[in-house]
Amino acid sequence: MAAVTAPGRVVEQAPLVIQAQGSFAVGGTVVRQPGTFDPARPVMPQGQTLHGDHARVFYQVPQNRRQLPLVMWHGFGQFGKTWETTADGREGYQTIFLRRGFPVYLVDQPRRAGAGRSTVAGSVSATPDDQRWFNMFRLGRWPEFFAGVQFSRDAEALNQYFRQMVPDTGPFDPQVATQAVSALFDKIGPGVLVTHSHSGGLGWTVAMMNPQVRGVVAYEPGSGFVFPSGEAPPAMPSAAGPLEAVEVAKAEFDKLTRVPIVVFYGDNIPAQPSPNPGEDNWRVRLAMARLWVEAINRHGGDATLVHLPQIGIRGNTHFPFSDLNNVQIADLMSDFLARKNLD
Amino acid sequence: MAAVTAPGRVVEQAPLVIQAQGSFAVGGTVVRQPGTFDPARPVMPQGQTLHGDHARVFYQVPQNRRQLPLVMWHGFGQFGKTWETTADGREGYQTIFLRRGFPVYLVDQPRRAGAGRSTVAGSVSATPDDQRWFNMFRLGRWPEFFAGVQFSRDAEALNQYFRQMVPDTGPFDPQVATQAVSALFDKIGPGVLVTHSHSGGLGWTVAMMNPQVRGVVAYEPGSGFVFPSGEAPPAMPSAAGPLEAVEVAKAEFDKLTRVPIVVFYGDNIPAQPSPNPGEDNWRVRLAMARLWVEAINRHGGDATLVHLPQIGIRGNTHFPFSDLNNVQIADLMSDFLARKNLD
Repeated sequence: MAAVTAPGRVVEQAPLVIQAQGSFAVGGTVVRQPGTFDPARPVMPQGQTLHGDHARVFYQVPQNRRQLPLVMWHGFGQFGKTWETTADGREGYQTIFLRRGFPVYLVDQPRRAGAGRSTVAGSVSATPDDQRWFNMFRLGRWPEFFAGVQFSRDAEALNQYFRQMVPDTGPFDPQVATQAVSALFDKIGPGVLVTHSHSGGLGWTVAMMNPQVRGVVAYEPGSGFVFPSGEAPPAMPSAAGPLEAVEVAKAEFDKLTRVPIVVFYGDNIPAQPSPNPGEDNWRVRLAMARLWVEAINRHGGDATLVHLPQIGIRGNTHFPFSDLNNVQIADLMSDFLARKNLD
Repeated sequence: MAAVTAPGRVVEQAPLVIQAQGSFAVGGTVVRQPGTFDPARPVMPQGQTLHGDHARVFYQVPQNRRQLPLVMWHGFGQFGKTWETTADGREGYQTIFLRRGFPVYLVDQPRRAGAGRSTVAGSVSATPDDQRWFNMFRLGRWPEFFAGVQFSRDAEALNQYFRQMVPDTGPFDPQVATQAVSALFDKIGPGVLVTHSHSGGLGWTVAMMNPQVRGVVAYEPGSGFVFPSGEAPPAMPSAAGPLEAVEVAKAEFDKLTRVPIVVFYGDNIPAQPSPNPGEDNWRVRLAMARLWVEAINRHGGDATLVHLPQIGIRGNTHFPFSDLNNVQIADLMSDFLARKNLD
């Protein structure tokens, strides 16, 4: 269907046939200010409400759709854009999986981007930090890219990549975030949750909250690994600080053993401690993810960890789904969905 | 193509055939912090950059496209959502005009929603103000809707409507906003600019900056009416404060006389001064728009003002393009584009 002539150049794509598309807010709350609204003084809050803390969702349903939709949830500092056009201008997961017949729902979590209406005031910093993310997202060690990294060397690609960051418009609150995404599953019914980084741990929570989550694909989950009470491993020290496991009631944990789960990690994660927090961070996260997958399976679950270099796929960053080889990465996800009867 | 059974219920829509879709950042600037980046202390800003102040754009190009794309720019407190699914769940301009063969580009202006990365720090208030917007956007006089208003009485519609507001993530700066949207026209070439409310005046600026703007459709422009030096009318007092005209050099103004322009206003705009700022605001804006259209035409331009009630179309709010009769409103826009050879 896609005729790829060279990385970053896609020509003669078949058209997308979309049965329905649109957007909506889901979840959230309403704050009410006591008093009486005075229409002559509309800037006074008395008697007014604020609808906020919802998620914003943009969805597309292809013709001849598969049954289960994919709900794609971005990570820290990101929004639905994560899954759209890649930094170097190729199709992202939004469109790749539409082509593969899946309804695709892109989430902006509460207090982020199109879901910016927060019930708690916030402040937005303008502190330069692009280089922090260049290292943390494992494009390389600024200003050098990793040899063989699956990221375009075109300057415009890095420009686009930096510009897809967005700030929080209010304090991050895991309960607010997970309730809104759970409300999305209440609205749309059964589906597969696709998470990235920060939403990885939040995604386990949503999967425990809502039985409509029928499978989870987690790209590089970064925190929130849940273990049954008494079974959490000790915190793992790293140059980025200690990574703590999270204990939950066994009955809650067991809910995660009832859905197929796959976890992917990319390349350039050091095996030994590194003084670079942007890399050492991922060393302990990958190590914790291995313990977590073992715990899920020990309790009768169905979790798989795929460390991409171990299957011969090299150079992936923290964003495998938008890397230069993202069609290959998507094929791995398609295989998982097929094997687990989620497609 | 669309079989509408009742307001808010659309069934058996033909599928959309999309040749290409995607998203990108455009325009913006880069801030550089002096010093040297220390990878061991990545939260320190020294030596780091911040890419910000761009616009975020989501676009779709239908199969068998018309030549000129439509660039849709939201108003105050809004983002690209303005043009997506309506509050009561029907298709908005994004999808309506895709069906009519136009490439559609939805903008989030700099420091808003998906373009939230600002080079200047900001603060986000959580002050309740839904009722302010209910009145200002002329749904009615809270808590009553106007009789016959083109807005669903379904409670969920109002819930969705309130939730499509988003805050600024940095100080609003008209130069930042207009430069980013002008950069979009530099990137995509000739097109038609569709503005709403706050982007109305900004849109005149972009049309003066960039000859790629080949026509302008303005829904309820709220400020920034430009007149040649020496020809600005006096400020118009209102219950919402005075509305000031803006003077520009005659040579700049003349650029607006070279493109077809249509301006639409909805219903429930009082003809006489009202103590309600949410209504009186629009009285002077409509009056100023009339003087502005006269000035454009006096100088050889081609501008039309359509006050919808005067052509028998009743009940429109500040958002005619998403009101219950938005297909009828879209037909008026299609007629304009056809008459001016912009389709």
